[in-house]
Amino acid sequence: MDIEEADKEKTGTENNLDFFFKPESIALIGASPNPEKLSHTILKSLREMNFKGKIYPVNPGYEEIEGLKCYSAPGEINNRIDIAIFAIPARAVLDTLKEPAGNIKGAVIVSSGFREMGPGGMKMEDELRDLLKEKGIRAMGPNCLGIYDTVSNVDTFFIEREKIERPVRDGVSVLTQSGSFAAMIMDELANEGAGVARVVSYGNKVDVNESDCLEFLAEDEATKAVALYIESVSDGRKFLKAASGCVKKKPVVALKVGKREPGARAASSHTGAISGMYEAYEAAFRKTGIIEVASYEELKDACKVLNRYSPVNGKRVLIITDGGGIGISIADACEEAGLRVPELSEAAVRKLKEKLPAFASVRNPVDLTGSVRDEHYVAALQETPYEEYDLAIVSLLWGPPLLTEGVAEKIKNFADSCGKPVIISSPGGKFSRELASAFTKTGMPVFFSPESAVRAAAVLCGGNGRQK
Amino acid sequence: MDIEEADKEKTGTENNLDFFFKPESIALIGASPNPEKLSHTILKSLREMNFKGKIYPVNPGYEEIEGLKCYSAPGEINNRIDIAIFAIPARAVLDTLKEPAGNIKGAVIVSSGFREMGPGGMKMEDELRDLLKEKGIRAMGPNCLGIYDTVSNVDTFFIEREKIERPVRDGVSVLTQSGSFAAMIMDELANEGAGVARVVSYGNKVDVNESDCLEFLAEDEATKAVALYIESVSDGRKFLKAASGCVKKKPVVALKVGKREPGARAASSHTGAISGMYEAYEAAFRKTGIIEVASYEELKDACKVLNRYSPVNGKRVLIITDGGGIGISIADACEEAGLRVPELSEAAVRKLKEKLPAFASVRNPVDLTGSVRDEHYVAALQETPYEEYDLAIVSLLWGPPLLTEGVAEKIKNFADSCGKPVIISSPGGKFSRELASAFTKTGMPVFFSPESAVRAAAVLCGGNGRQK
Repeated sequence: MDIEEADKEKTGTENNLDFFFKPESIALIGASPNPEKLSHTILKSLREMNFKGKIYPVNPGYEEIEGLKCYSAPGEINNRIDIAIFAIPARAVLDTLKEPAGNIKGAVIVSSGFREMGPGGMKMEDELRDLLKEKGIRAMGPNCLGIYDTVSNVDTFFIEREKIERPVRDGVSVLTQSGSFAAMIMDELANEGAGVARVVSYGNKVDVNESDCLEFLAEDEATKAVALYIESVSDGRKFLKAASGCVKKKPVVALKVGKREPGARAASSHTGAISGMYEAYEAAFRKTGIIEVASYEELKDACKVLNRYSPVNGKRVLIITDGGGIGISIADACEEAGLRVPELSEAAVRKLKEKLPAFASVRNPVDLTGSVRDEHYVAALQETPYEEYDLAIVSLLWGPPLLTEGVAEKIKNFADSCGKPVIISSPGGKFSRELASAFTKTGMPVFFSPESAVRAAAVLCGGNGRQK
Repeated sequence: MDIEEADKEKTGTENNLDFFFKPESIALIGASPNPEKLSHTILKSLREMNFKGKIYPVNPGYEEIEGLKCYSAPGEINNRIDIAIFAIPARAVLDTLKEPAGNIKGAVIVSSGFREMGPGGMKMEDELRDLLKEKGIRAMGPNCLGIYDTVSNVDTFFIEREKIERPVRDGVSVLTQSGSFAAMIMDELANEGAGVARVVSYGNKVDVNESDCLEFLAEDEATKAVALYIESVSDGRKFLKAASGCVKKKPVVALKVGKREPGARAASSHTGAISGMYEAYEAAFRKTGIIEVASYEELKDACKVLNRYSPVNGKRVLIITDGGGIGISIADACEEAGLRVPELSEAAVRKLKEKLPAFASVRNPVDLTGSVRDEHYVAALQETPYEEYDLAIVSLLWGPPLLTEGVAEKIKNFADSCGKPVIISSPGGKFSRELASAFTKTGMPVFFSPESAVRAAAVLCGGNGRQK
């Protein structure tokens, strides 16, 4: 077998990133008993996640850390290391990789101090790339948070759970260059009762990039949909192929940031990338079938809605509410987003009038008013002929005295049986949030403003139809 | 004095709506000891507000309610009634007004069952209008929540405080047809630590409308800015005059809902109004100098920012953050909203580099990174020459270990002295919200997503510059 063939074989193995997402062993390089060290937070997280595999702390200064045997170097571990988390200074990362490390399959290098620091750092990053290649190690980072994975129970994010909440397990996986973005969206999703499958923050992308991850996620059964936060794409051709492949299997949404000067300028300094022309990204999204979102808020809404629903074929929205003003705002926002709020058929109106009390306004939006009871919401959903809409937005104000938390279970049962997405909107403060949690408990995401519910609907309808 | 002259004189008095906003006496028609009655909630609210004037319960069935003498009819009260709150069925409102009621100056008719109910209700509303005219009573409603007023301590909103929180006192007054909208925005503002001056929900507008209120608020010292939620305007000419007059004194922002079919269709049923062509409203806003906002979220952001800041002359935004990704998202959103994120001058960059640590990225957006300390935020603000920007957006992620709540007081002191708006953005979940409350405690509003901070900035810069 000559070198080329060996290389090919190796590449073949390397392209399978399973070890990052199904690891059996993790080495924590830079492990420390000092609670102020990032590595300490990571060790704590892995234990709180109840990671089932082996954990090997690595630090020449200790024999043992937190009850685990500590190794002086990765080469001393007599086992394959699926993920070696590097939580040491940039220079020390290079030094470690110059020593024996052939048992490492994947590296998550959270350390900063590379390309994002200018010419000196860029040289170090080049050196890092060469070392990784030489050792046959696939790597995420540097300058990243790494992996938060509710499927494999891995968490390399070095920010404490008291500061950044971790979302529960659900179906959306998130890919991002920006660590601060990863932390922010995880924290907010958790806070809103929403979950994720896997989150990957790959930072400077010395090796693993969005395309590699897309290839993995395309085949990943735990991932129902993918959300992408893109500052720049490393290899356009590879991205088009990976994205097309993934879109064939599951919905992919993307937010491109650094769209124009000066956002683009800042992005280039941030992870050392060049953002490139926005128009090229737009075209790539269209070509591959990626659903583009326009803002951070929209990406978060997309994650929430895609955890539960799949995109629909059509743009007709049925709106049901107990607050006339909100119904109108939602209808306006729908039209603005290129969705349709069609008139109900005469037959539907007749049927609804029969089943709903006289105080209800029977049209689209249906207004059940402040006299609403739980069962009126269900009646309005049940009696509107399914063929007249593609998805429903149900917006509840909790002021009406006869409306109770019990409405959540009832609407959930309807949503399960009808096969159409039912998007819940519940604006308001403390009291409303508390009642709305009855929905998140049943697995239905809740959107807290009229506009956010519409953003979610627009994602299911294939993206915002506004002219750009 | 002939009839015409008498009418004129009466109109003169009637046009002064002070009694609604500076009442010395309130009659609660339909008062009841039954805690399930709306009137009971209103009485409780008035007492929790610590309303200083007289309160007269009116109900022929009782001698006394909650320790107050109860009257069988308004005509029996030997005093002028500044506000008579009607919390009785529609038919009973008419009956009451047929009896002696000459001592009533203003009525707040929260009762529904009028024009919004169709032809029968419309007839009753016509009758109501005639009766009010005959008795010389000015009226808000029917089908409304009425007045929530932190200046006069009046609260006619019949939804319990446990369900809808009441905001503290601040400078923005809100005018709205929709009661559900009024309740929702009050609840959310309170929940986000923001306040209001006066909120008026006038429902069907049988008499008092947006123009009357604008005339009052223009001269009202407690009102620093006005937020309008408009389904329809009653009298276009009057509105133009009142709005122009108000805009000369203080900023006015407006959200027009029911812009197009079908939102317009729903609006027409909701408070019985005809929404009219959106384009006419747009033109009216432009002509009068009203700042138009495009969504509910934007109106809420406007309220929060106008509580503290006045509009600026210019569109240049300085962005300072500790999370690179967020900085880029904010810059993108600024450009999208027609704002500018100019490059810093060479002199500014030099100065900032001197004062900020090496890890900071010195450009616009300034990225202080995860190594940030409180004083770096202040240094970045202080050292950027004031003449290079019109307002600043400071976006804090609270992950960085050396960042503390103390940063709020420091930034607040800078904002007080520099004379430029400093808009605080703090995305994230529980931990971030808690730390961000250090800002609301100093009176600085906090915006919870990159986009909401930019919406607030756009309002101060005279409205969103996107092409519509």
